[in-house]
Amino acid sequence: MIIHLKNDVSKAVKHEIAAKYEAVELFKDDKTILITPCSLKNIDGKYLEYIDESWVFDNDIQLASKKYRSDIQEIKIGNLAIGGQHRNTIIIIGPCGVESEEQIELTADFINKCGLHTLRAGSFKPRTSPYSFQGMGIEGLKLLAGMRDKYGFPIVTEVRDSSHIDAVIEYADVIQIGAKSMYDHGILRKCGKTNKPILLKRGFGSTLQEFVQAAEFILSGGNQNVMLCERGIRTFESKTRFTLDLCGVAYLKANINLPVILDPSHAMGYAYGVPDLARACMAMDVDGLLIEVHPDPSVAKSDASQQLNHDEFKLLFESLKHIAKAVNRNII
Amino acid sequence: MIIHLKNDVSKAVKHEIAAKYEAVELFKDDKTILITPCSLKNIDGKYLEYIDESWVFDNDIQLASKKYRSDIQEIKIGNLAIGGQHRNTIIIIGPCGVESEEQIELTADFINKCGLHTLRAGSFKPRTSPYSFQGMGIEGLKLLAGMRDKYGFPIVTEVRDSSHIDAVIEYADVIQIGAKSMYDHGILRKCGKTNKPILLKRGFGSTLQEFVQAAEFILSGGNQNVMLCERGIRTFESKTRFTLDLCGVAYLKANINLPVILDPSHAMGYAYGVPDLARACMAMDVDGLLIEVHPDPSVAKSDASQQLNHDEFKLLFESLKHIAKAVNRNII
Amino acid sequence: MIIHLKNDVSKAVKHEIAAKYEAVELFKDDKTILITPCSLKNIDGKYLEYIDESWVFDNDIQLASKKYRSDIQEIKIGNLAIGGQHRNTIIIIGPCGVESEEQIELTADFINKCGLHTLRAGSFKPRTSPYSFQGMGIEGLKLLAGMRDKYGFPIVTEVRDSSHIDAVIEYADVIQIGAKSMYDHGILRKCGKTNKPILLKRGFGSTLQEFVQAAEFILSGGNQNVMLCERGIRTFESKTRFTLDLCGVAYLKANINLPVILDPSHAMGYAYGVPDLARACMAMDVDGLLIEVHPDPSVAKSDASQQLNHDEFKLLFESLKHIAKAVNRNII
Amino acid sequence: MIIHLKNDVSKAVKHEIAAKYEAVELFKDDKTILITPCSLKNIDGKYLEYIDESWVFDNDIQLASKKYRSDIQEIKIGNLAIGGQHRNTIIIIGPCGVESEEQIELTADFINKCGLHTLRAGSFKPRTSPYSFQGMGIEGLKLLAGMRDKYGFPIVTEVRDSSHIDAVIEYADVIQIGAKSMYDHGILRKCGKTNKPILLKRGFGSTLQEFVQAAEFILSGGNQNVMLCERGIRTFESKTRFTLDLCGVAYLKANINLPVILDPSHAMGYAYGVPDLARACMAMDVDGLLIEVHPDPSVAKSDASQQLNHDEFKLLFESLKHIAKAVNRNII
Repeated sequence: MIIHLKNDVSKAVKHEIAAKYEAVELFKDDKTILITPCSLKNIDGKYLEYIDESWVFDNDIQLASKKYRSDIQEIKIGNLAIGGQHRNTIIIIGPCGVESEEQIELTADFINKCGLHTLRAGSFKPRTSPYSFQGMGIEGLKLLAGMRDKYGFPIVTEVRDSSHIDAVIEYADVIQIGAKSMYDHGILRKCGKTNKPILLKRGFGSTLQEFVQAAEFILSGGNQNVMLCERGIRTFESKTRFTLDLCGVAYLKANINLPVILDPSHAMGYAYGVPDLARACMAMDVDGLLIEVHPDPSVAKSDASQQLNHDEFKLLFESLKHIAKAVNRNII
Repeated sequence: MIIHLKNDVSKAVKHEIAAKYEAVELFKDDKTILITPCSLKNIDGKYLEYIDESWVFDNDIQLASKKYRSDIQEIKIGNLAIGGQHRNTIIIIGPCGVESEEQIELTADFINKCGLHTLRAGSFKPRTSPYSFQGMGIEGLKLLAGMRDKYGFPIVTEVRDSSHIDAVIEYADVIQIGAKSMYDHGILRKCGKTNKPILLKRGFGSTLQEFVQAAEFILSGGNQNVMLCERGIRTFESKTRFTLDLCGVAYLKANINLPVILDPSHAMGYAYGVPDLARACMAMDVDGLLIEVHPDPSVAKSDASQQLNHDEFKLLFESLKHIAKAVNRNII
Repeated sequence: MIIHLKNDVSKAVKHEIAAKYEAVELFKDDKTILITPCSLKNIDGKYLEYIDESWVFDNDIQLASKKYRSDIQEIKIGNLAIGGQHRNTIIIIGPCGVESEEQIELTADFINKCGLHTLRAGSFKPRTSPYSFQGMGIEGLKLLAGMRDKYGFPIVTEVRDSSHIDAVIEYADVIQIGAKSMYDHGILRKCGKTNKPILLKRGFGSTLQEFVQAAEFILSGGNQNVMLCERGIRTFESKTRFTLDLCGVAYLKANINLPVILDPSHAMGYAYGVPDLARACMAMDVDGLLIEVHPDPSVAKSDASQQLNHDEFKLLFESLKHIAKAVNRNII
Repeated sequence: MIIHLKNDVSKAVKHEIAAKYEAVELFKDDKTILITPCSLKNIDGKYLEYIDESWVFDNDIQLASKKYRSDIQEIKIGNLAIGGQHRNTIIIIGPCGVESEEQIELTADFINKCGLHTLRAGSFKPRTSPYSFQGMGIEGLKLLAGMRDKYGFPIVTEVRDSSHIDAVIEYADVIQIGAKSMYDHGILRKCGKTNKPILLKRGFGSTLQEFVQAAEFILSGGNQNVMLCERGIRTFESKTRFTLDLCGVAYLKANINLPVILDPSHAMGYAYGVPDLARACMAMDVDGLLIEVHPDPSVAKSDASQQLNHDEFKLLFESLKHIAKAVNRNII
């Protein structure tokens, strides 16, 4: 359960209650919030007077639940904002991985010409094989930072494992936690200690329950700026790389107070299907889309099959504007 | 492989070739078409002169393949048509099951007021439990036929198993083969012998390959009027009833020459998610939507949780018109 | 709930109660059994005196539940018996499909030499493609019947769809309902009206709940001779054809009162893995194994990759005897 | 492909070739081994004389492939050994998590009395919820080390994320990489740099291909002491916690040169099914079993439902001995 303590409760008493009921203690907007596995009926009567409000949940989705807070968390990305009272849908594009200065410069220039404002690319690639390209590492982060300096774009980039989490937190404006790292407590806890926005991808073998519980690690660490990114789950169907779970998105929108971002590129795995899926994602009335775009996908060092080229994206982008209007969303 | 024989080949020779190469023989538009497991290099040289055209496939998707015929099959439903050169999207609504004359009359009247033209309801329900409502049977078919007489609506209704396939073929304008019957050869072969349009639902545990192969049973039987209906597959996620496979739809649109219909109601299993999903389905640029609508879902004898009431559908319908316009589709 | 009525209740009253509470009526061992969606508290007080015993269930697994009857149903197959107080494990072998008299004669002779007593082969093959071998049909059933005459073996053969269910019931000693037909009400209800043993295979996309509910169709139709056959479910893993669900078997053994048969051949899809899996199945302490064996798998017209040849089976058979002893089972 | 260079090639030339073909360089038994994405036909003719042997693979399973080395890797755990020419099956038991000195002492004493030799317990628990017990951390490792001192037992314990990998490598005799960390490059690469045996669990959403590729990270880092542990995959079935993939185990045994360990406890999720499954696992003829055993499961702080108590394990252990004998395995 979540407990809001009254403001005049002394620090000592707060700690006493937290310790006694094995609670996670969280400070937000001058309030002390306790999250405890305990239920209200087990709280000692003498503490009840210190409790301002409380919420009981039937599972461990707590801070992220609409039953606790019904409005969607507002998140600022550079000068942009999503969630909250906004009707903004952010379109985040860029190549799968940073490969060279030229590639990333071409991308940034294209984003600028589209009138978009965010640059995304990975520099630590979570490849399944040790014999594939593993990303440019710190050098890639520096190239991305260079584009931020030149164009003013917030940078979205991925942390693959704890060994470079500090570097990613330092360089990125939005920290992407990849699908394969969704359970990584080391990463989740460190992300809970920063205030930068976190783009948390759903593990492809993870239930919605586990997905939101991963977000709870960050939220209960103190960082409320979490976006949930659905990117396809693994099913028996093998003609496509993954299966985009839009039913799950409908569940998240109805029950969870965090913005939702959709990634049709990784779900499909093939560029030919991305435009239709991206339009479907926009029609889902969500807070953002993440689409892989590469100046020349045929030479990409990773995910070559699923990235759109610039012309393909331009065509798609025009149609996305129509869908956005139909569902009353502003593309940013 | 598919072989088109020349028109002047004698019947006797046609049968000789068909028998020799274990071919399915199909007559369409004055042409004799052979579908054989054999490959061209194994055809006896003496027969080559009788061959007009031929197509080789790497799997048993043949007649339905865009490699064989690239344009989408046109299908007439009453006075309406989908597929072909049309940009029509048919919206098929109605309750899960026929329950009473009053219920079905209220539904027909509502469809009429919406300006839609097709009535769908099941009368043989494929329930998982023998202790649940199993449908009204023939009585229900008669009630549906009554609405056709009164409103001129084509009737879409489901065949559950072979025991009543003849009755359904007699009463229905569109024969729906349910997800649980997708592998039923008895039904598939009988549907191959009629000319009525077939709405073939994907089994929730079936691959796209198997789904299209089920259609091949009907096509190779002689009936080209097959629509493919994606209605959600079974995955590990249990917060929703099934997972709508829109990645799979992108695959079908790119590779298969049959119209695609989407059913967000069965995929989601809960009415709250249906409007967002229905909009996403429309944005997928498909030939039809199937949405469960009931005058009063709270008293429905089956699928109570997932049916929209009339007011909910009206709201959704308005927004679907905007999406249809954005993707250049005419709602019929 | 299940209600056992007292023996002296009149037929008229029985029917009155059944009609009022929408109950399935079942007569077994001189008892009248009602299975109704109603709960006890809704039964009119005036009827309570007619009730002998009653059982309430939290889902629609009723007649098959160990809460209703804790001992495993005994099933007689020819002169053999499984379930009940027996510790017998029946080993059922044979080719995927009947292909010729010679093939089936070689098989029967091999079974005889092994000291086994049951012959299984399919004559109506549920192929996914209309362009593959569909089985020998009635001719195949006759060949199987010939082997019964010659060797005295009970015949296990599959019904694929309702169109030939009567023929299969006539010729077979054990009627196998295939995975793709598990939801076929037409077949299930006809099998409920015979007394022959039914080998019901789990659909590869079906939950355990649905699997047992399919059995309830047969049980509530009057036939208690149902064996449940696990043969692999469909998962994301594609290196093997299916995934044998032994966790599910543990669930069935703990909760369901029907014998369990395991089919490692269809689960694996490749002969190389069948021996290890067959030993694991025997170690699960179940009532039967079904293993595909063909005189020459390399020329088999269906499932060529997964069938063992006679020498491979002989080797396996020796090791199965050791495992059977270790778990205190008699191979029959 | 894998290349064995001749022994007399100079270091400079080795590095030149490795750099040119983007190869991972590995030194084993005085040999220099290169693993390169390149194929033989692309190797410059002038280098061919330095090549001793080479192997080409159709996917990125290389060092672990039986095509490269057909015998199973021998692994020493304390004074015990599995794999290689041994027919040993190690039985590893212990509670899910270290909870107290008393609990771990009771466990060690029980293991000792059973005549077993390995103690397993987790001290960093990879819980899905931040509000559940997260493990005793370093304190728990010290308690485990104490039992090693007292009983001489090798200690098997889990690393959850990179933040404590160094501590686990220091304290453990066998490092368990949990299912949720299977893709963690930080952990995998560090484990490649130690010589301690690694027990790598399969991610529950991971294919066999990815599972073995995760092992390749460790193998190509220089550590050949990797055991593969199947512990259940996630499927649509929800009556059990996961689905133990024994078909996958048959695949691993046929194609991969690493020992296989099976964990029926996590697969089933409920103690009632563990004995049958454990016997099936033993019958699979594998190198080890991992079974969760707790002095009093009812008070366990994690995985309470699936742990056996000491009496239950004793009963199971007796029957495992019979199965082991039937498949010609020595329990250690």
